[in-house]
Amino acid sequence: MILGSPHLQRLVDAFRRLPGVGGKTAERYALHLLAAPQDAAEELAAALQEARRAVCHCGTCRNLSDSDPCRICSDPRRDHGIICVVEKPAGAMAIERSGIYRGLYHVLHGAINPLEHIGPEELRIDLLLNRLKEGAIREVILATNATTEGETTAHYLSRLIAPLGVRVTRIAHGVPIGSGLEYADEATLLRAIEGRGNF
Amino acid sequence: MILGSPHLQRLVDAFRRLPGVGGKTAERYALHLLAAPQDAAEELAAALQEARRAVCHCGTCRNLSDSDPCRICSDPRRDHGIICVVEKPAGAMAIERSGIYRGLYHVLHGAINPLEHIGPEELRIDLLLNRLKEGAIREVILATNATTEGETTAHYLSRLIAPLGVRVTRIAHGVPIGSGLEYADEATLLRAIEGRGNF
Repeated sequence: MILGSPHLQRLVDAFRRLPGVGGKTAERYALHLLAAPQDAAEELAAALQEARRAVCHCGTCRNLSDSDPCRICSDPRRDHGIICVVEKPAGAMAIERSGIYRGLYHVLHGAINPLEHIGPEELRIDLLLNRLKEGAIREVILATNATTEGETTAHYLSRLIAPLGVRVTRIAHGVPIGSGLEYADEATLLRAIEGRGNF
Repeated sequence: MILGSPHLQRLVDAFRRLPGVGGKTAERYALHLLAAPQDAAEELAAALQEARRAVCHCGTCRNLSDSDPCRICSDPRRDHGIICVVEKPAGAMAIERSGIYRGLYHVLHGAINPLEHIGPEELRIDLLLNRLKEGAIREVILATNATTEGETTAHYLSRLIAPLGVRVTRIAHGVPIGSGLEYADEATLLRAIEGRGNF
């Protein structure tokens, strides 16, 4: 036990449960907050409780939000004819940060994964289909991850959506901008060459 | 603002104040806790508040502790004739983890740094001297960091302690175990060669 302090140990253990945080990093966080002015620890504790209380899922797009419908779903300046389907809120966040997209989102909170018993029911794909059946959507961009699960989900969705007369597209995959061919793995190069376009 | 959620933004901002945590890592922590079961966030918040309330400085060695005197200062099986002086609680923690040391500690909570206006008063070096004047201490191991400030502090302490008739030692510096010469910087190599011993 850390210096025989169960309280310090409890704090370190709580930090260790964060993604990618090991024992030494957790210790560093805990010691930093105990050495910092009182309000730094108080602020983190209050922010945690407040976010847990106030942040919910938008009833329309299932993204994280303070309000329902969320700011994006209720923004009349967004294009309400396009939905971008992502696995996680972090994906929507990354696209928002790029500033390139002005349509709506739909967050699945996962991807189809039979081994983990995650299927269409768990992802509430019915909610996405209900949005499409309302008739205002002309395109669905599938932006699930480029993993086996993400590809499976994209294929499943495209077969479900195509009969509804909605255009289905998939984000492009290839060599990242700013990176050289020598850093790309074989699967990425394969997709980059298969997906080549006219110059 | 992240997805237009001030609550999520506040949580991300609070995580960003942790050492070495940038925007993306803070976002990852926040999204993880909002996706995890309710009790993960609650537990971290409660652990923070509890640690802040319960963890204090030992009145003898100034280390972090749940009790005063701390578990180490009040342990009769430790050697009460040796004090190891460290800058931070993390230093004492690292030495404890090695299991090699059975004496007591003294935590300065910093090092002498004239540019930051940190001198002997701020480090409460009088408290260390009081412990030595009680007469039971036969050795002080200076384990301040191998930085300019740490070395300055070690020199200052050694000049102050030597007249009290207490043996003053400094931890060894050199090439880390398990590492090759090619990875050591020049200052470390200099110390490794200067400090060489008979084989």
